Amino acid sequence: MQHALAEEKVFKDPVHKYIYVQDSLIWNLINTREFQRLRRIRQLGTSYLTFHGAEHSRFSHSLGVYEITRRIISQFERNGYPDWPTGEKLVALCAALLHDVGHGPFSHSIEQVFDMDHEEWTCRILLDDTEIHRVLSEVSADFPERVASVIRKTYHHPIVVSLVSSQMDADRMDYLLRDAYYTGVNYGTFDLDRILRVLRPYRDRIVVKDSGMHAVEDYLMSRYQMYWQVYFHPVTRSSEIILRQIFRRAKELYGGGYRFGWMNRSLLKLINGTLTVEDYLRLDEALVQTAFSEWTAERDWLLSDLCRRFLNRKLYKYITVDEANETMLAEMKRQFLAAGLEPEYHLEVDYPSDLPYDVYRPGPGDTGGKRDKPPILLVDKHGKLSEISSQSDIIHSITGIQRGRYHLYYPEDLLREAADRLSPEIKKWFSLTNEKEI
Amino acid sequence: MQHALAEEKVFKDPVHKYIYVQDSLIWNLINTREFQRLRRIRQLGTSYLTFHGAEHSRFSHSLGVYEITRRIISQFERNGYPDWPTGEKLVALCAALLHDVGHGPFSHSIEQVFDMDHEEWTCRILLDDTEIHRVLSEVSADFPERVASVIRKTYHHPIVVSLVSSQMDADRMDYLLRDAYYTGVNYGTFDLDRILRVLRPYRDRIVVKDSGMHAVEDYLMSRYQMYWQVYFHPVTRSSEIILRQIFRRAKELYGGGYRFGWMNRSLLKLINGTLTVEDYLRLDEALVQTAFSEWTAERDWLLSDLCRRFLNRKLYKYITVDEANETMLAEMKRQFLAAGLEPEYHLEVDYPSDLPYDVYRPGPGDTGGKRDKPPILLVDKHGKLSEISSQSDIIHSITGIQRGRYHLYYPEDLLREAADRLSPEIKKWFSLTNEKEI
Amino acid sequence: MQHALAEEKVFKDPVHKYIYVQDSLIWNLINTREFQRLRRIRQLGTSYLTFHGAEHSRFSHSLGVYEITRRIISQFERNGYPDWPTGEKLVALCAALLHDVGHGPFSHSIEQVFDMDHEEWTCRILLDDTEIHRVLSEVSADFPERVASVIRKTYHHPIVVSLVSSQMDADRMDYLLRDAYYTGVNYGTFDLDRILRVLRPYRDRIVVKDSGMHAVEDYLMSRYQMYWQVYFHPVTRSSEIILRQIFRRAKELYGGGYRFGWMNRSLLKLINGTLTVEDYLRLDEALVQTAFSEWTAERDWLLSDLCRRFLNRKLYKYITVDEANETMLAEMKRQFLAAGLEPEYHLEVDYPSDLPYDVYRPGPGDTGGKRDKPPILLVDKHGKLSEISSQSDIIHSITGIQRGRYHLYYPEDLLREAADRLSPEIKKWFSLTNEKEI
Amino acid sequence: MQHALAEEKVFKDPVHKYIYVQDSLIWNLINTREFQRLRRIRQLGTSYLTFHGAEHSRFSHSLGVYEITRRIISQFERNGYPDWPTGEKLVALCAALLHDVGHGPFSHSIEQVFDMDHEEWTCRILLDDTEIHRVLSEVSADFPERVASVIRKTYHHPIVVSLVSSQMDADRMDYLLRDAYYTGVNYGTFDLDRILRVLRPYRDRIVVKDSGMHAVEDYLMSRYQMYWQVYFHPVTRSSEIILRQIFRRAKELYGGGYRFGWMNRSLLKLINGTLTVEDYLRLDEALVQTAFSEWTAERDWLLSDLCRRFLNRKLYKYITVDEANETMLAEMKRQFLAAGLEPEYHLEVDYPSDLPYDVYRPGPGDTGGKRDKPPILLVDKHGKLSEISSQSDIIHSITGIQRGRYHLYYPEDLLREAADRLSPEIKKWFSLTNEKEI
Repeated sequence: MQHALAEEKVFKDPVHKYIYVQDSLIWNLINTREFQRLRRIRQLGTSYLTFHGAEHSRFSHSLGVYEITRRIISQFERNGYPDWPTGEKLVALCAALLHDVGHGPFSHSIEQVFDMDHEEWTCRILLDDTEIHRVLSEVSADFPERVASVIRKTYHHPIVVSLVSSQMDADRMDYLLRDAYYTGVNYGTFDLDRILRVLRPYRDRIVVKDSGMHAVEDYLMSRYQMYWQVYFHPVTRSSEIILRQIFRRAKELYGGGYRFGWMNRSLLKLINGTLTVEDYLRLDEALVQTAFSEWTAERDWLLSDLCRRFLNRKLYKYITVDEANETMLAEMKRQFLAAGLEPEYHLEVDYPSDLPYDVYRPGPGDTGGKRDKPPILLVDKHGKLSEISSQSDIIHSITGIQRGRYHLYYPEDLLREAADRLSPEIKKWFSLTNEKEI
Repeated sequence: MQHALAEEKVFKDPVHKYIYVQDSLIWNLINTREFQRLRRIRQLGTSYLTFHGAEHSRFSHSLGVYEITRRIISQFERNGYPDWPTGEKLVALCAALLHDVGHGPFSHSIEQVFDMDHEEWTCRILLDDTEIHRVLSEVSADFPERVASVIRKTYHHPIVVSLVSSQMDADRMDYLLRDAYYTGVNYGTFDLDRILRVLRPYRDRIVVKDSGMHAVEDYLMSRYQMYWQVYFHPVTRSSEIILRQIFRRAKELYGGGYRFGWMNRSLLKLINGTLTVEDYLRLDEALVQTAFSEWTAERDWLLSDLCRRFLNRKLYKYITVDEANETMLAEMKRQFLAAGLEPEYHLEVDYPSDLPYDVYRPGPGDTGGKRDKPPILLVDKHGKLSEISSQSDIIHSITGIQRGRYHLYYPEDLLREAADRLSPEIKKWFSLTNEKEI
Repeated sequence: MQHALAEEKVFKDPVHKYIYVQDSLIWNLINTREFQRLRRIRQLGTSYLTFHGAEHSRFSHSLGVYEITRRIISQFERNGYPDWPTGEKLVALCAALLHDVGHGPFSHSIEQVFDMDHEEWTCRILLDDTEIHRVLSEVSADFPERVASVIRKTYHHPIVVSLVSSQMDADRMDYLLRDAYYTGVNYGTFDLDRILRVLRPYRDRIVVKDSGMHAVEDYLMSRYQMYWQVYFHPVTRSSEIILRQIFRRAKELYGGGYRFGWMNRSLLKLINGTLTVEDYLRLDEALVQTAFSEWTAERDWLLSDLCRRFLNRKLYKYITVDEANETMLAEMKRQFLAAGLEPEYHLEVDYPSDLPYDVYRPGPGDTGGKRDKPPILLVDKHGKLSEISSQSDIIHSITGIQRGRYHLYYPEDLLREAADRLSPEIKKWFSLTNEKEI
Repeated sequence: MQHALAEEKVFKDPVHKYIYVQDSLIWNLINTREFQRLRRIRQLGTSYLTFHGAEHSRFSHSLGVYEITRRIISQFERNGYPDWPTGEKLVALCAALLHDVGHGPFSHSIEQVFDMDHEEWTCRILLDDTEIHRVLSEVSADFPERVASVIRKTYHHPIVVSLVSSQMDADRMDYLLRDAYYTGVNYGTFDLDRILRVLRPYRDRIVVKDSGMHAVEDYLMSRYQMYWQVYFHPVTRSSEIILRQIFRRAKELYGGGYRFGWMNRSLLKLINGTLTVEDYLRLDEALVQTAFSEWTAERDWLLSDLCRRFLNRKLYKYITVDEANETMLAEMKRQFLAAGLEPEYHLEVDYPSDLPYDVYRPGPGDTGGKRDKPPILLVDKHGKLSEISSQSDIIHSITGIQRGRYHLYYPEDLLREAADRLSPEIKKWFSLTNEKEI
């Protein structure tokens, strides 16, 4: 049974000015080992290699999501909106605070290689024998499970789920503002105060008062700009590719019986797929960077080269093509191989629409799969709901935008060295001909 | 022989909006392995444990110092001030960019334990066989040495030294603005543009046009506030104490022949004092954090406890006393020992005036020792110079301020467990009596 | 023949931090009586009645347009772009600074009533016997005419015209940023530095490097948001309607031989259409407000009531209708009249697409009429141009958006008093029935 | 008896983001004619002639003072501090909102010439037959008097007075932030949120928790900087001198029976000292500027010249002297007279310590006179109070600072024309000798 703190605690936060903690439960959760670990996991993965300021952690972001959720609920309670279920505040705050606690180091990249899912790990950390679990259990025996079910989106109050997981949830609102602040771009800034003021609990979800439509447009445009200018930045993509290749190579080497000059117990279990919660909690970005630093001395040339590229930011360059047809790629790979490169590593096709983000998708939330989130609904003064992209031309125009161009990533230094052995056409493709551009 | 870049490169920077690189020399220096390593060293050491946003690196700061220096010189050249020596721009820019390249992980703390000096390491990195050395040597054979002598403050043009190392140099201007931005406090903000506009090269130093006195006051007040609110924050001090204790313990254990469960080659050489440049470059905060993570499993209880405290932010608490007399401390230590604690670790006296910062010191720059930096001089329209604290009451009031109170740091959890074995007086000192405060 | 100032002058500006004046010509223009008059004319007309912070003047804005133009040209010159015509800097700066000098008080509203055009007045002020004319003439006898022809868009270097008058000119860039700053909304903020960096002089116009497309999208979205949230705000529209009605009534009364209790020579000449330049320069918003204050004591009830409404912000309310068909309006007016109101004044239909703004219009600049401005063109590295809305879905979606709803403005207090004499249907239209809304 | 509004109203405000109105009483007060009049009175008088952005009105500022007061009280109520008297919220909010309602146009200057006092006018407007009076009276018959007594500082709850009138009251906090925002300087920014959090009602006044000392230092340093950089700016002083001279001349002329070419009823009553509340409410800055514009055509050369100077910003220049002894001034005046100038107008001595501001004065609040305000007290956790300048060196250093230099203001153009008739010494004083300065 939690209590109010004798005196409110505050965290100084650049994005929200102050983050207010009023419940000892929240305070105790922040002080767990598992939550403190988020300080060693960057919010934006490898983006700091593109935007040097983007060195902020998931710890900061998690506090921010908590704070936005707190402000939304406190506005609901202050105004006495009847559709907000009483007694659900604490479970919502915990879910907001803890929603990212299962993230591993550079998780978007690592999850792909090892087929893991941070949401699942979040739930395991809540339910296993962890400090977080013990703190949550003090509320009641079933409280950890209640928080986990919000994160799994199966909680019996869908409105609580919608607060932490929808097309305009506290998570997204915090990361747009925070990532814009730390990268220094000013695309991500929208009027948070105004958006909070037009949110309304309505039946089993959070909707937007129709007079707030332009504010939502502004929020979605921020998202659009942040995606194309920051999250999908080609240099960031290049560093993610290298990062994935490092782990792919390590896995491959392990599978082939290679003996690593340096290895770590938790890393090994990541590679061979036998991670326990305790191992998982030891994985952080400090460990990954230390491993890469050690691996620059590995006998396997590909592994050591990739690690050096990552640490010293000697990334792959890219060219843009309208189409990436199989014939062309096959020919490129053939020539790469003939020139002494490793086509499986040295030529990677990237297509933005494969990315795990969508600017906005108005479809039904529950049927479509994991990534789908409930659409944004406007409510008018008569209680009539309408999906926002049906009301706004702007939002309609960005809904489901697909970019039609492919990027081919490759190590320019290696390719240039091997230029003699490439056909003129390939050389032209990869701009190795030194023609002047205007 | 360096060249202008075909097209100016820009870095997006939250503090200066954009950082402009026009010389290929600068571009190449940024891309060296040694400079990229600064991404893995935080600008503010352990301050992120107090201000969660302060996760920025020395990489960002170094770019910022470069940019401010570039703007100052470009203003000097645009206005054609005769006292700025022509042909010194590039050496100044390199010194500005590279001045911190010798910083190690958590360097303020580690340097104390191992008696090292980052400035010396900076020079070694410039002069040894490194990528930076090779890039600098392309200008001329003696260029690395010229840059190093600016950093050592022995360069034959003192005005260049004064640009990168004085009471109001590009280094300090950047870190105040940057640290304020990332912590989120707004004390550190002063009007950089205006200060740049009132700087003047005058004989062999940089001085300030007297009409700019209030702008300098504002800058020094920012420094004053940042020192007391951020840099000397007691929670940060606590984490630094623990960090130093970890290394002190490791050194002690190593000296005593202890066999570590986990050790790393570069760390070992740090501990036994045999670091080469190559080893030094492998030291970064990822490695330190990884070591701490591994050491939480050490048999030595003190070492593993300290590592856990650092990683999980279970820091020491502190009490404030007017005086820290030997008798009192001796009695405390005696009781701590009797209660089963380790007084050499579990009671640490901290006195702010021992800190490696001074808000402002108007004394002569060259005689007083390492930390002294040339004072700030105002110049009037007749060319008359005056030291600024003689003109400004405010600055006079903060010059050489000494705070008279001591902080005693201790592990509250351990002390509370052992409370039965402590005298009532000691318990009162450490507030273990549960009296209510108003 | 102008000279560089001995020392650069600076203005502190909240939007651009500092505005730099380097030419004595510019300095002298700013100090003319005609330019100083712009301090008494608000940039946003009556918008301060909606956004209380929006009290900034055209003086501030004009300095801002000058500063942006200065930065653009100085970037062109620094990079030595060959398509920027040498020797055109000063004429461009003067046109930028002076482009709004012909604005009268609340000019958008007054121009409609009296069928005037501020651009024409700008040219008259440049060419007549004014202080501005004398300052410009010091450059050369034809210099005033050259500046005027830039403003008229007939200058023989179209690229100079395009700098001060296009879909992305210095004027628009300044007002979006400035109006956002003073209203306090954060829709208007885009990355000015980045946009300046991607502008290129290309043949006879200013174009945008294609890598800057997203920056332009962001700028146009700012414009879109500012139009709908600020410039077209219904409360501002209401105040503009009242302002126009005051002048309409004054003109009507004058035409009917009414003897005003208070009148002013310049106002009278405005009303009877005989303004000279000297009279025009005496018209400012101080005078208009003083007139309204005096007219609150007029015998003509309609005039005094309207003046009171304006000064005391007792504006008209509005209702929104999908269509404003003649039958409905005729019936409304009939009932208004029967109820003792003045339908010619007390019922005004407003339709946003009549507004003198367009978010973005890609059509040809010169043929379409006064308001058309050259579209925004992207240039790729091969020199190929493309109109931006053909490349960007977002911009395509806001191009030529037409809002389909009408607003009917009316004095709610008067209508409510007369409610007894209105039909139930009319009462329902105007929400006089006190039904509760949700 | 007032009611909560059905729905909270918000004003967009650049300084506080949003201003929240929850009581219909406050809403109705804002909508009175007398409060709307504050839109026509600038917050910073003539400062816009120095800082062109400073065109904001007392209307904006009054809303800001209201909002800060609202936030302070709402924090007191949320925390249930026992020393805050229940039921005093509304009277405090009204006093905060209305405290400046008696300001006239350019009041600091005009009050000096006509020996008036805006505080007295505020009380008259609250108590006379005005719209404000009628709105306040709806609460209770004695409510207008209660609000007035807060403004007069005689209210029976001194803590309410201390909220709106002390060395760190809502008034000062708003104007520092607001004036910094609109001028664009960044000296005035302090951490309002933090200051609000350390304020405590304690017995009969508002005090500061001692841990907030540095935040208060920062606030007082902002004040110090704003005073010297903005409020006492010599250009602003020059414009104030001219403004006072205009009214002084008009009064003198009126006294001498001069017939004005243009006059206004309320102005006349200002000049002859017979203003009623109704007349007073007609005085605004629009009227003053209109009068000046008309008076540029007056036969009295001095009056018309001064008006032109004010409107066209042809201000007096100044020289700085260490001492302004009578002999020197007498000699200057003698020569000015001989050279055809008007020494009573053309030579004005200004000494900053005469100014109606003090950065901080720790003296007793009640005995010393009008300007004295209660000092800032810190409270420690045992309830012990101490005056802040006894704890802070910084604050001690700015307490009662007196600047020792005089400024002499004069019309440089006229003096230069008459230079032949001046002695070499006088010419040197006024820099008419064209010597080069470095």
